[in-house]
Amino acid sequence: MQIVSTDMETGTLTPELLQKMNAYWRAANYLSVGQLYLRNNPLLKEPLKLDDIKNMLLGHWGTTPGQNFIYTHLNRVIKKYDLNMIYVSGPGHGGPAVVAGTYLEGTYTEVYPNITQDEEGLKKLFTQFSYPGGISSHASPQTPGSIHEGGELGYSLSHSFGAVLDNPDLIVACVVGDGEAETGPLATAWHSNKFINPVSDGVVLPILHLNGYKISNPTVLARISHEELEQLFEGYGYTPYFVEGADPELMHEAMATVLDKAIEHIKQIKQDAARQDSPERPRWPMIVLRSPKGWTGPKVIDGHKIEGNFRSHQVPLSVSATTPPAHLQMLEDWLKSYKPEELFDEKGKLIPELAKLAPEGERRMGANPHTNGGQLLRDLHMPDFRKYAVEVTSPGIDGEGDTYVSGKFLRDVLKYNEHKRNFRIFGPDETVSNRLDAIFETTNRQWEAPIIESDEFLSSSGGVMEMLSEHQCEGWLEGYLLTGRHGLFNCYEAFIHIVDSMFNQHAKWLKATLELPWRRKIASLNILLTSTVWRQDHNGFTHQDPGFMDHVVNKKATIVRVYLPPDANCLLSVMDHCLRSYHYVNVIAAGKHPAPQWLNMDQAIAHCTRGIGIWNFASNDQDCEPDVVMACCGDVPTLEILAAVSILREHLPELKIRVVNVVDLFKLQKSSEHTHGLTDRDYDALFTTNKPVVFAFHGYPWLVHRLTYNRSNNFNLHVRGYKEEGTITTSFDMTVLNEMDRFHLVIDAIDRLPQTGSKGVYLKQLLQDKLIQHKHYISANGKDMPEILNWKWNTEGFNN
Amino acid sequence: MQIVSTDMETGTLTPELLQKMNAYWRAANYLSVGQLYLRNNPLLKEPLKLDDIKNMLLGHWGTTPGQNFIYTHLNRVIKKYDLNMIYVSGPGHGGPAVVAGTYLEGTYTEVYPNITQDEEGLKKLFTQFSYPGGISSHASPQTPGSIHEGGELGYSLSHSFGAVLDNPDLIVACVVGDGEAETGPLATAWHSNKFINPVSDGVVLPILHLNGYKISNPTVLARISHEELEQLFEGYGYTPYFVEGADPELMHEAMATVLDKAIEHIKQIKQDAARQDSPERPRWPMIVLRSPKGWTGPKVIDGHKIEGNFRSHQVPLSVSATTPPAHLQMLEDWLKSYKPEELFDEKGKLIPELAKLAPEGERRMGANPHTNGGQLLRDLHMPDFRKYAVEVTSPGIDGEGDTYVSGKFLRDVLKYNEHKRNFRIFGPDETVSNRLDAIFETTNRQWEAPIIESDEFLSSSGGVMEMLSEHQCEGWLEGYLLTGRHGLFNCYEAFIHIVDSMFNQHAKWLKATLELPWRRKIASLNILLTSTVWRQDHNGFTHQDPGFMDHVVNKKATIVRVYLPPDANCLLSVMDHCLRSYHYVNVIAAGKHPAPQWLNMDQAIAHCTRGIGIWNFASNDQDCEPDVVMACCGDVPTLEILAAVSILREHLPELKIRVVNVVDLFKLQKSSEHTHGLTDRDYDALFTTNKPVVFAFHGYPWLVHRLTYNRSNNFNLHVRGYKEEGTITTSFDMTVLNEMDRFHLVIDAIDRLPQTGSKGVYLKQLLQDKLIQHKHYISANGKDMPEILNWKWNTEGFNN
Repeated sequence: MQIVSTDMETGTLTPELLQKMNAYWRAANYLSVGQLYLRNNPLLKEPLKLDDIKNMLLGHWGTTPGQNFIYTHLNRVIKKYDLNMIYVSGPGHGGPAVVAGTYLEGTYTEVYPNITQDEEGLKKLFTQFSYPGGISSHASPQTPGSIHEGGELGYSLSHSFGAVLDNPDLIVACVVGDGEAETGPLATAWHSNKFINPVSDGVVLPILHLNGYKISNPTVLARISHEELEQLFEGYGYTPYFVEGADPELMHEAMATVLDKAIEHIKQIKQDAARQDSPERPRWPMIVLRSPKGWTGPKVIDGHKIEGNFRSHQVPLSVSATTPPAHLQMLEDWLKSYKPEELFDEKGKLIPELAKLAPEGERRMGANPHTNGGQLLRDLHMPDFRKYAVEVTSPGIDGEGDTYVSGKFLRDVLKYNEHKRNFRIFGPDETVSNRLDAIFETTNRQWEAPIIESDEFLSSSGGVMEMLSEHQCEGWLEGYLLTGRHGLFNCYEAFIHIVDSMFNQHAKWLKATLELPWRRKIASLNILLTSTVWRQDHNGFTHQDPGFMDHVVNKKATIVRVYLPPDANCLLSVMDHCLRSYHYVNVIAAGKHPAPQWLNMDQAIAHCTRGIGIWNFASNDQDCEPDVVMACCGDVPTLEILAAVSILREHLPELKIRVVNVVDLFKLQKSSEHTHGLTDRDYDALFTTNKPVVFAFHGYPWLVHRLTYNRSNNFNLHVRGYKEEGTITTSFDMTVLNEMDRFHLVIDAIDRLPQTGSKGVYLKQLLQDKLIQHKHYISANGKDMPEILNWKWNTEGFNN
Repeated sequence: MQIVSTDMETGTLTPELLQKMNAYWRAANYLSVGQLYLRNNPLLKEPLKLDDIKNMLLGHWGTTPGQNFIYTHLNRVIKKYDLNMIYVSGPGHGGPAVVAGTYLEGTYTEVYPNITQDEEGLKKLFTQFSYPGGISSHASPQTPGSIHEGGELGYSLSHSFGAVLDNPDLIVACVVGDGEAETGPLATAWHSNKFINPVSDGVVLPILHLNGYKISNPTVLARISHEELEQLFEGYGYTPYFVEGADPELMHEAMATVLDKAIEHIKQIKQDAARQDSPERPRWPMIVLRSPKGWTGPKVIDGHKIEGNFRSHQVPLSVSATTPPAHLQMLEDWLKSYKPEELFDEKGKLIPELAKLAPEGERRMGANPHTNGGQLLRDLHMPDFRKYAVEVTSPGIDGEGDTYVSGKFLRDVLKYNEHKRNFRIFGPDETVSNRLDAIFETTNRQWEAPIIESDEFLSSSGGVMEMLSEHQCEGWLEGYLLTGRHGLFNCYEAFIHIVDSMFNQHAKWLKATLELPWRRKIASLNILLTSTVWRQDHNGFTHQDPGFMDHVVNKKATIVRVYLPPDANCLLSVMDHCLRSYHYVNVIAAGKHPAPQWLNMDQAIAHCTRGIGIWNFASNDQDCEPDVVMACCGDVPTLEILAAVSILREHLPELKIRVVNVVDLFKLQKSSEHTHGLTDRDYDALFTTNKPVVFAFHGYPWLVHRLTYNRSNNFNLHVRGYKEEGTITTSFDMTVLNEMDRFHLVIDAIDRLPQTGSKGVYLKQLLQDKLIQHKHYISANGKDMPEILNWKWNTEGFNN
């Protein structure tokens, strides 16, 4: 690394290197301003004309020069220390910087060969930015080297920490914007350092970029005292290093010195930790870079301060036919202040002595394979899920809890892949509560804070990550997946809404990367929802919300999948399928409480493979068209439908009933709208075209209507589900409150079957009385009537 | 306050007072354990029998004794200093403590007269807890004195800071659980102190309760060093006071001493600030209370450590017919360890010398009127919104941006209510971006950190609260509303999903309080969504998600309202309506960019009052049934529908077209499902029973289907909307990508109107060519074709 001279008495950088790095930074800044403004004349070979300027000036300058500065300096330490480093751009709109950085190092052209390293390529590079159908003003899936989208703020640190898990040699340089730092998810993500093992995980080097302003407000962290800032980050457990100023020469030297210190600090920690058996949590370094917003841009425009002010946030200088003519000259002066003629050769290529400042090959941050995780992705070594099957000798036998059974399967997935360290389970301290505790027979929760005697399942290294922050769980897992590994997030159903917006952004990332041939597919984001709406015996109304599915189904059909396995064997089959899949978000809702089991393993596999089907053991329409279809989706709805069917078959044996169970929610949608969707013919074959359908659904009933509104039997479809009635009560009483219990379901059927005549009327009256009895009994005893508690499916008593 | 002796040489508390306070705490603990276990024998007058124990033991002990301790001590300082103080219980499951505290002080019985202060009342109090149809295991709407629900964690501090805004005499004692403290929203809420004016706002006294564990994990903050903890809270800008230990006597003295210090510190800060013109941000006190989880409960059960361990989180000792018989005795010993016979008289009433420890009247934390904010709520003084009307001489004239117009109205709402200080606007630094900047003609953003010369619209007191955290905006506003004031949250449409789960919990709170006669209605939560999906010219795909409405419509129909005003006058009318309303969540989606205006003020009022209606100026079916209904909802869809109608009417003048515009989304739903819903007759009168309907919708198209699936003309309804296709591009191109543009809409109509014959076929071909032209033009010029840009509605050319 002859170009770097360190530890000279005069400073970290030789004057020559400092000037070169400054030139590299100027080149990046020039390319950034070019992206904001130019569609022509990219090297300013001609005097700048209005016609060279884009018709619409859209983009963000404020954070960009600071990020160019950081990128330039990271390049130096990557070369000096031969680092395996990637770059996460947290501030919302630093797109031009990451594009400039990867263009200068050559990766942009490798990924997009039409964006050549010459004048023509520069013209295209500039024009595409914030241009219809072009690239966005933040780091995005289209940006080489990015695993993080800058649109919605707050997740850069969680993503970074997820990326370094089980990647002991990786360093993620994570630039945190001081606006972003105000978000909740970011504010708690600093605590991720209590979960990172200094031996088996990599390192996140956070660089808090205090440029002082958001869109039009100052930032909180830029306006607290230096002392408070230092206390805050020491309190978060870091050693903060400060780089503050505006003079480029002084700043280059300061940044270089601090970065060397930080890298050496990191190396020291890693070395110390490697020598110890159970190392203490280290105080990792972090950097606070305070530099002017819109650094090196116009100082004052039309009397307003620009550099160092919020007014530099977007495009600071407007240039068009209607703005003052002087603006065009100001833009030209601004662009020329970077002296492009010293940076690019006649053809528009970065001059070789500057190009040499960038790392080479996969050491370039835009080309590091961790940033295109699919390249590194290897299939999991999967145990045979059939081996964990529950024996179901007849439908309706007692179960142990569906997630409890899958816990053993997941335990072995962890075990089988332990040596590869490429599978992890994430959750907000609910893994035991969600009854996946078998996992802890083989692994622990990873925890780098002190462990005391009476703690359970904690260790400085382990496959489970638990912090009481759904944002952190989701963010860590996303970072883990995006760098080419596998995982599962288990969460209470109601509180998964906490990450609705994170799911949105990840689903958008998946959709956008599908359209980019150079982006390899990554493992699916698997979300296991349990502790569901129907089983909130002691948590009540606040813990009841099955609406995440409603949210999920709005995303692109190519990306999202929703499964509701009705029993343990179905959950095993679905779980196996999801863990093997790529590039989806799989949402699985399943029960954790002991509940009846319906299908043996072979039946479960067949049923889950179809995703929807008639349950013959419960139906009596084998030889004819049914009079009514009783459909169900979800574990509790399945139980209630079968209980309703048993009442109907006992009291109205002449009625022909078909029971349909849905595992794969998208089967309900038309095949033209979702690849899993049934054709109309197949749908009609199940649900008929003209018979009443009583459907018990796990979630909000309208979701079924939204999926089936254009099916031919739509008008006969009557859906029961959660309609936002809840309290502390038993599972059965929850179904009564929402009119999805067996008695209401029978009444619903009778109301749609006039042919049941007086027998139907009589049965209806009987069940209405039962509902009253139920209310009396529960309020006197605090539990369900024995008749409900002990009800068992029993086909033998039926006359067919 | 003769019962309190302070500053004695021996300590803050006299031995006598200490013993009394300890007895009060024992009483609260006794009541808490009673709630967890007993349904009979509440005073243990008989030996405890299995039959006295509830059938299902559900609830949470861990946090409860610590919160009882805090409540007891807060009572003392309220009396000593005559404080106006309320209590926010952050930890998830401290319900038994808040119930015990309010029962002992008498407020519980005042609110629920059947829960009397005697043995019978105790029995009911105990039985109702975590019992079917009873009360939940966390502070909830049913709990007197609560403005905060403990179900979903993370919002206690934001709620507390919202409550003290403009309440200069109020102190909110906010207990923050160390589990809750790991959430993102809570981690950033500590920074609220940079926004609180020490003169005109009240004070939040955070009490971080380090009891060491969550459900089954230790907590992060309990396992960092004392030094780091101190640095962290000093870094957050507080002066932390520590109370740590397990011995009750020492802890009482320590807590009393620290609370006195904290209150005197607060008083000093308030006095100092009152004397200064522009006081500096003070370092408010906060308390760190480290006490054992499950304090005073069983130490060890069946060989497992319980007190001071995660195992005390829920019901630590199981007692039933199937548990070891010794457990029953252990429970009796536990209950008797509090010596109930010394605390309650023969009839079951707290003895007078202990009852005197509680404050009186509205000083009791359970009776403070701020906790039932509707009691304090006063209507806003509203300017006449008509005064801000845009003059619309003919439909389609240029507008200035719909939110921009409403900004002036909001400015004056702020002005008219300035002296009452009961209206505030919240947003994540988007108020200017959302074009509500007229507001800053009359007020500023409140900001207690340093202000420098080039800042804009900042002041130490102001009506606008901006922090880059949607969680904080929502949480502050909720706290403000719950304590009886009014407000508006303005937010980018896509990022409102960040608070999906907070909205859920608030909607549940509203629904539950509606069912409680003693809870007065509060002002509506008004959410203005702008920077919408269709206008993301420079932000692109990440900023495009109109799905919040889908989320909202799942909540109870009595609570939620969704409005999509198509122009500025409609937005004014809707905004006025929402600001006057009570106990709803009103979601308004509106445009901020200059866009055509359709209705003059009188028309807008009439249209918004109906919520849906035929636009006669655009329709030509006045004398007959239409051939087709062209419907629209939202500003951009309205523009595209009218453009489509103008094409249809020009090319196919014989076609009878009806234009229907929807402002109030719930009009689409049946009247049986939502009070705003149209009857089938009214719906059919608008949409016909058998004619094709082409519907352009602001959001995901399926939402319209979900609302209308059971309408008679469902099969003829064809909805266009956002289908998750987006990029950096113009608004018109966005509509093309999602096939909601005028050309696609015309083609959709022609496809459903075979009677248009060869003229239809010709027009369709013409428009398909136009779509190709559009793509060419935009990629060459970066903007829309002049034909699109300059299109204006013009009825005059039509032949009718």
